[in-house]
Amino acid sequence: MPISAPELLDALNFRYATKAFDPEKKIPVETWQAIEQSLALTPSSFGLQPWKFLVIDSAEIREKLKVASWGQGQVTDSSHFVVLTTRTDLDQEDIDSWIARLSDVQGTPMQALAGLSGVISSFSEGMSIPEKQSWNTRQVYIALGQLMTASAVLGIDTCPMEGISPADYDEILGLKGSGYATAVGCALGYRTADDKYASATKARFPLEKVVAHV
Amino acid sequence: MPISAPELLDALNFRYATKAFDPEKKIPVETWQAIEQSLALTPSSFGLQPWKFLVIDSAEIREKLKVASWGQGQVTDSSHFVVLTTRTDLDQEDIDSWIARLSDVQGTPMQALAGLSGVISSFSEGMSIPEKQSWNTRQVYIALGQLMTASAVLGIDTCPMEGISPADYDEILGLKGSGYATAVGCALGYRTADDKYASATKARFPLEKVVAHV
Repeated sequence: MPISAPELLDALNFRYATKAFDPEKKIPVETWQAIEQSLALTPSSFGLQPWKFLVIDSAEIREKLKVASWGQGQVTDSSHFVVLTTRTDLDQEDIDSWIARLSDVQGTPMQALAGLSGVISSFSEGMSIPEKQSWNTRQVYIALGQLMTASAVLGIDTCPMEGISPADYDEILGLKGSGYATAVGCALGYRTADDKYASATKARFPLEKVVAHV
Repeated sequence: MPISAPELLDALNFRYATKAFDPEKKIPVETWQAIEQSLALTPSSFGLQPWKFLVIDSAEIREKLKVASWGQGQVTDSSHFVVLTTRTDLDQEDIDSWIARLSDVQGTPMQALAGLSGVISSFSEGMSIPEKQSWNTRQVYIALGQLMTASAVLGIDTCPMEGISPADYDEILGLKGSGYATAVGCALGYRTADDKYASATKARFPLEKVVAHV
């Protein structure tokens, strides 16, 4: 195994929702490329990957997003800021495009995937558009979880950001009508030496309150 | 950092939605305890942890859950099977209990947390009960993401299970009226040597389709 159980727990205990990022410290290129790869490797139901991850390089856009995030400094001060967007629909084209990709990558004839395609279509037909978006958004949260955990074991700090205005983000990022909508943000980089939240005792409910054996 | 970027990607590429678990291979106790700890360490919005994770030890209950999971063998054959449940509401008691815990763990006077408590209450008041459950469920999916990623770096196989009947699960697990409802399942353990899905090429969209720089 690449990591031992104590090392994993050390990494998860070290991580916290970083409030103050050091604006001078950038994630090295190779590490960042691995983080992008890890995002792309996120598991999703049926493998559909109903998402797009926007890495905001533009300082100007980051300033605008900060305003749409209650002025939280993580948006501009972090090394990298990612907006996790969700597909707003799940239509036949989404399904076909995934089945074609699967066929291509795994060398499986399209006919052999007709059953899977039908299962996904039936599943999709049972949902309204808002239900589809809601379902897709849950998948995006798997990506958020994987992103924070992967970063933690790489020694990268993160701050998940739900305290944002998704509608304003969509406006700023030109997402209206694109078929994707803002779900949640995530800032990544390195904590400052004096972020007071870094030294706060990690607060969780006792294990026995959240894990039960049946 | 506890893991290098190539090691992380190796672990994420090694993982796949395991279909055939070896029923003879059990996750060692210390490793399992770390996985439970990692579940409890999952980040959540405001730190509210709107979840309970049920580890199904009972073979009899696993058999029943299998029936409510389209007969999928992962439910009974995996070393450990977890049902991730979501809080169905977000009421003042939830908020108070979290604020009290925070005060206790971090030694912060309750008065100093009144502001945070008010922010969470205002946020909660803006949502209907179904919206609250939906929001809580997204948090549970962060836990699912962290669970799969943490397991992958520990060398443990997983299979996320959405193809289940949550209503039947709730019935079998006696969750009706408990304030918690089934969100998703996750089987954990070790693949069999002959699970054909293990050797299938990992299929994802190309990186440029899912990650964009803005």
